[in-house]
Amino acid sequence: MKKDDVYQKALELHRKHNGKLAVESLIKIKSKEELSLVYTPGVAEPSRQIAKDPTLAYDLTLKGRTVAVISNGTAVLGLGDIGPEAALPVMEGKAQLLKDFAGVDAVPLVIDTKEPEEITRFIKQVAPTFAGINLEDIAAPACFQVEEALQDIGVPVFHDDQHGTAIVVAAALKNAAVLANKPISQLKVVVSGAGAAGIAITKLLLGLECLAGRCFLATDDFRVKDLILLDSKGIIGPHRKNLNLYKQSLLGFINKEKKLGGLKEALEGADVFIGVSKPNLITPRMIKSMSQKPIIFAMANPEPEILPDVAKQAGAFIVGTGRSDYPNQINNVLAFPAIFKAVVDGRLKKISLKMKLRTALALAKMIKPTPEAILPDPFYPDLASQVAREILR
Amino acid sequence: MKKDDVYQKALELHRKHNGKLAVESLIKIKSKEELSLVYTPGVAEPSRQIAKDPTLAYDLTLKGRTVAVISNGTAVLGLGDIGPEAALPVMEGKAQLLKDFAGVDAVPLVIDTKEPEEITRFIKQVAPTFAGINLEDIAAPACFQVEEALQDIGVPVFHDDQHGTAIVVAAALKNAAVLANKPISQLKVVVSGAGAAGIAITKLLLGLECLAGRCFLATDDFRVKDLILLDSKGIIGPHRKNLNLYKQSLLGFINKEKKLGGLKEALEGADVFIGVSKPNLITPRMIKSMSQKPIIFAMANPEPEILPDVAKQAGAFIVGTGRSDYPNQINNVLAFPAIFKAVVDGRLKKISLKMKLRTALALAKMIKPTPEAILPDPFYPDLASQVAREILR
Repeated sequence: MKKDDVYQKALELHRKHNGKLAVESLIKIKSKEELSLVYTPGVAEPSRQIAKDPTLAYDLTLKGRTVAVISNGTAVLGLGDIGPEAALPVMEGKAQLLKDFAGVDAVPLVIDTKEPEEITRFIKQVAPTFAGINLEDIAAPACFQVEEALQDIGVPVFHDDQHGTAIVVAAALKNAAVLANKPISQLKVVVSGAGAAGIAITKLLLGLECLAGRCFLATDDFRVKDLILLDSKGIIGPHRKNLNLYKQSLLGFINKEKKLGGLKEALEGADVFIGVSKPNLITPRMIKSMSQKPIIFAMANPEPEILPDVAKQAGAFIVGTGRSDYPNQINNVLAFPAIFKAVVDGRLKKISLKMKLRTALALAKMIKPTPEAILPDPFYPDLASQVAREILR
Repeated sequence: MKKDDVYQKALELHRKHNGKLAVESLIKIKSKEELSLVYTPGVAEPSRQIAKDPTLAYDLTLKGRTVAVISNGTAVLGLGDIGPEAALPVMEGKAQLLKDFAGVDAVPLVIDTKEPEEITRFIKQVAPTFAGINLEDIAAPACFQVEEALQDIGVPVFHDDQHGTAIVVAAALKNAAVLANKPISQLKVVVSGAGAAGIAITKLLLGLECLAGRCFLATDDFRVKDLILLDSKGIIGPHRKNLNLYKQSLLGFINKEKKLGGLKEALEGADVFIGVSKPNLITPRMIKSMSQKPIIFAMANPEPEILPDVAKQAGAFIVGTGRSDYPNQINNVLAFPAIFKAVVDGRLKKISLKMKLRTALALAKMIKPTPEAILPDPFYPDLASQVAREILR
């Protein structure tokens, strides 16, 4: 389908159904007796039981099966800061994917505030309703501040633009490295883009946990050792001024060769390019400057950092993008349904770094990779359940 | 069914289904093409359209069909301040009734805050997601402050404990007065309980609108002219000290005979008792002191202000309670589904006093009343839709 056709068809579909999600009653009320069980006076009894033991809300209400997909619409797809109402189709879609791919009930909530403190307070207030919170399309650096402040609220808070992306990138990288016959620990990786996704990818690939501006090595399960991170001003290193707290906290772990410059300098001799930045940033010449069998994940939306055909022609061994019309779509839908399936099945309080890495490795294992198929198909039957079981193991 | 059996059965039912509501996908995703329509890249188009014109969210997302049922769990049924988790079964039940009785999609949200300013801020923030907000089981006087602060946020905010109760009482009173052959304008009415419900009943029956501590006569469509309001300390009048703002604002409109004392004094010569207060407050002797054909709505939960049999024996002409095991249940489920059906069908921005009165009169008209049946059955087919049409007329 052509792009304009996709847009037109999507618009018609949304208009026809007035969105995508509805609420369904699990118990049909047909008599006064049933009414007295689901509502007053009978409903008082589950309420009394939960008042005595709040964890019973997981058994006696929708809480145990239901998560919220929350956004303020400040960083939506390629569209930017379009506000809460305009973000609602995306959040409703995300909630729908949780239902369709993992059987997890999900409610989209779009909220009208940009202040990190207010977003944090909102989520703390609404947390008693849900088993978990999927943060979505909240601009950096607010998203980091919000997520950090919400680590101990009793239910897991997962910012998919950060961790969902990082997990699927790690899965793709795992299989790509196998195909290129290069051990992960010897890869030279370049990450372009230091927003929500770029920083999370960096942390996950390096095995870092960070809090309050300090990072530490937390695991060796999956560990890249040489990684250069770039933002729009070039390679991030101690030479750079005015770095935000989140970039600063990575300084001890990235750019060990102390390179200066931009993408051109960073890519010389590198094995892997991971782009979560802007369209058309890299040239065939840059790819030619990389080591043998270069791996290119060009995930800028809607146009990648380099078109797959161009990259291949320049010698790229494996190319992935964010798009469904090329092979190797690096698609969050592979991760977040499984993550939230694990959240509800395991009644998790947090999603640890180890769980994220287990998700990536479980995803990688779901396919016998080829250069044109390094990741499983999202429609692989029961994918989310199988991965969720690995996460909870 | 005996009460203990109801409680036990309700508990089992809630445990079996893990609550009562689920989320349903309206468009099944079975292929990559469908995925590209409900999610990226296709979903960008509805988002772009809504960014240009936010009212399109009503057509292109669940917003136009969906309301939130929001509570902080501070005044739940007869259970009091049991907290957000324990309130969730009630809110989920309420959401279910909206779906089953009116076809309105509804999402329960329980929130962890008691501060009126925080509740207000929360609701303003989440309002872009929904076509309307049902506030529920929030203690007075916070509920008044919250509701007043939310009158102009673009979607209607309706506190059911106030207005739902008031509407159904007005409907019941309308039919009871016809049966007793007494014009509404000549009734002497006594309202016992000056919390959320008691104050709202007083305002609706008198035709008052109030804002910032000032009330004014806003309509003559349905108008009681003689009403005494009591709180736990007795009759409210200018002689009383330390009245809260909301009770004070009614002083010019209630207790025109300037009575002093308590329920005993208030009920002498009265035509109507409306109780939203405490069990066993009134005696047969008090009922005997009322005018001929007294009308008694004893709605305290779970035990009424007087048992119907006792009231009847003392001479009550019509008795209603909040309970389903006596005739004349004065039940909010008659009103709020119709109200929110009107909200979504009419894309209302507010629910005016006139709409509330139209709801009451439409409900009264749905039955040819007898002393044992002054209100329609909630299972009357299509009740909410028919009443909604009257509201929107």
